[in-house]
Amino acid sequence: MDRETCSGFDQQDPLSKFRSEFSLPEGVVYLDGNSLGALPRATPPRITEVIAREWGEGLIRSWNASHWIEAPSRIGDKIARLVGAQAGEVIVADSTSVNLFKLLAGALRIQPGRHFILTESENFPTDLYIAQGVSRMTEGTHALRMVPRHEMEAAIDGSVAVLMLTQVDYATGEILDMRRLSDLARRHGVLALWDLSHSAGAFPVDLNGSNVDLAVGCGYKYLNGGPGAPAYLFIAQALQPAMQSPISGWMGHKDPFAFDREYFPAAGIRSQLAGSPPILSMAALEVAIDLWLRVDQQEARRKSMALGDLFIKLVDDTCSDLVLSVASPRDAALRGSQVSLRHPHAYQVMRALIDRGVIGDFRAPDLMRFGFAALYTRYVDIYDAVDALREVLVRGTWQRPEYATRLTVT
Amino acid sequence: MDRETCSGFDQQDPLSKFRSEFSLPEGVVYLDGNSLGALPRATPPRITEVIAREWGEGLIRSWNASHWIEAPSRIGDKIARLVGAQAGEVIVADSTSVNLFKLLAGALRIQPGRHFILTESENFPTDLYIAQGVSRMTEGTHALRMVPRHEMEAAIDGSVAVLMLTQVDYATGEILDMRRLSDLARRHGVLALWDLSHSAGAFPVDLNGSNVDLAVGCGYKYLNGGPGAPAYLFIAQALQPAMQSPISGWMGHKDPFAFDREYFPAAGIRSQLAGSPPILSMAALEVAIDLWLRVDQQEARRKSMALGDLFIKLVDDTCSDLVLSVASPRDAALRGSQVSLRHPHAYQVMRALIDRGVIGDFRAPDLMRFGFAALYTRYVDIYDAVDALREVLVRGTWQRPEYATRLTVT
Repeated sequence: MDRETCSGFDQQDPLSKFRSEFSLPEGVVYLDGNSLGALPRATPPRITEVIAREWGEGLIRSWNASHWIEAPSRIGDKIARLVGAQAGEVIVADSTSVNLFKLLAGALRIQPGRHFILTESENFPTDLYIAQGVSRMTEGTHALRMVPRHEMEAAIDGSVAVLMLTQVDYATGEILDMRRLSDLARRHGVLALWDLSHSAGAFPVDLNGSNVDLAVGCGYKYLNGGPGAPAYLFIAQALQPAMQSPISGWMGHKDPFAFDREYFPAAGIRSQLAGSPPILSMAALEVAIDLWLRVDQQEARRKSMALGDLFIKLVDDTCSDLVLSVASPRDAALRGSQVSLRHPHAYQVMRALIDRGVIGDFRAPDLMRFGFAALYTRYVDIYDAVDALREVLVRGTWQRPEYATRLTVT
Repeated sequence: MDRETCSGFDQQDPLSKFRSEFSLPEGVVYLDGNSLGALPRATPPRITEVIAREWGEGLIRSWNASHWIEAPSRIGDKIARLVGAQAGEVIVADSTSVNLFKLLAGALRIQPGRHFILTESENFPTDLYIAQGVSRMTEGTHALRMVPRHEMEAAIDGSVAVLMLTQVDYATGEILDMRRLSDLARRHGVLALWDLSHSAGAFPVDLNGSNVDLAVGCGYKYLNGGPGAPAYLFIAQALQPAMQSPISGWMGHKDPFAFDREYFPAAGIRSQLAGSPPILSMAALEVAIDLWLRVDQQEARRKSMALGDLFIKLVDDTCSDLVLSVASPRDAALRGSQVSLRHPHAYQVMRALIDRGVIGDFRAPDLMRFGFAALYTRYVDIYDAVDALREVLVRGTWQRPEYATRLTVT
């Protein structure tokens, strides 16, 4: 496997045309789109328009004239098409953490007599933290139960109110069986709540086809919505009449501009809104989602699997002597759009790689993550990344003293 | 009082230089900065830089290199200087509604044996809604008590956990006595929580000098942070060790990138963060706050009072025969930076005014609000606004059928 062959893959790649729709820095191989997606070229002109024309010229009138007020539902309906949901089942709001809080707190109230939030101990930490906070708020009536992944199915029973899981393990990229676990949950009267932060944009998600009740997801990873982009949440249609948000702000009121003193929730998913949506960040997210709606998601998944397989093959072929091990599933069908490698000095190695222009990230204690964004990652990028990795390890450049100091964000 | 005289006031206005720092549409008198502040000219180039250089080129590295991770604290410290707080007492996060939820829920937990959230029935509706939601969440152990303004002081007693008020009445602009009410609350062991959404940027706020315990505020009104700009919250230093956010997300963890399974709150105000901050919207807010830090707030207050007095005088002088009444305090010292007028057809009159290029807003059932932003509102704008108002009423243009239909946002 040489660079020429990889270049040939790129020439045959049906998605290659999308790369030119992103603005990527020269001399960089960007493999961290699973943490912060790259900038679509359509975003800057759109934001300039929103700021100059809609805000600057339109001012307050733009809530109506530029349809700002409908942005959470409108973008939510677009995301619904990416995750196998219907229009009216997804809304854009707040952050993933806040959305998870709202759904967990709302779900516990409609599951009387059930006292556990069940999750796996490897779930993404902020999901665990939020569930711990929700549990603390119930004054001990509801507890968070964390079990190892292999014990999870056995732990799903009638005492569980909500099964809260992330579809893709952020550390290893392993995909959990959403359909199987949601079905099992449903058979026990458990609500299935999934975090799609590392799924949407990585592969086709089928919420309704998987009998999912509730979901949250992030706008700034594979979806390319920009740093700290607004998040989204999903509530299956049948569940919507029962689900109340604990954060009952005016944007979730049935008539926010009636200025009633009493809160009457809006019908449907809009009742999950709280405050005013951050329009600039929403606009950037919408550009990115509109781009995604032009992509054949099955094609993107095929490419993502091929990129991952190529990465693992090159690591096997060229780095087998270098204390690296593959922490991700080798079967592409079980793997999200990332490959993680273990190394005892993963932090320093990643720092050295980034200085070499190959950007992935580090997750404690010993993981290097490499994310593959099918819309802009090329096969030659994979070749160059593994080549740089081998060089950093062989030359020992990672041992430079400056890489021993931790940066604030790692 | 003629237009010439008003123009003379503008020539002597020490703040007139700031108007050129805003991008305002031609032919518009904008008197709705209390609802959505105007666009600072420095905002578009800064956002272009954040998008193109920090996001596009820097990508994930910008969390460190462009100090995104510190934005909530950094901007919070700047806002602290505008509201009489110390560095470390204010943080930028989420929306006003979500922040209010966090502070109310946190405050109830440290006030054992006290079962009421006390507020006035004229408080801003979303504040009432959020408190209703918090109360519902406690399963009836804590109730929201709404009393008329004149009964509030008498209702402050040892049964109250939190006194929750908005400093400026959104409808009439009346300023509540924050110092007096907070002192009274403190004497009864009640925590005083203030919403500054219509205060900060309207006049100098002195949180610590007023013995305030907790506060929230909005970034998109007088502060000019942009549509749906992130909000802020304040916790007095002494109270910080006790206050826990119910929404315990990773950004509030003491070490978010350690990826612990257990939530350990960060020391101080940072524990109030939940998810990732929306960087584009944060950047727009920071530009606006930086502009405010160059303003003499006493000077801005003087001008705001003068604009309001002029508005009322012109209405008295020229519209006394036109079924209008002034709903705001006539004493400028008791009035925020707005004047509200009552008219039985307020909605239609405001629609006609907006079509005439004078933008204020309508609040049900019969109020027209006119907000004065000292940084960009001129004395001639006040003259032109009242002139247009008189014309709309005298000519009856508000009776056009198209103004009878309500827009989504009013």
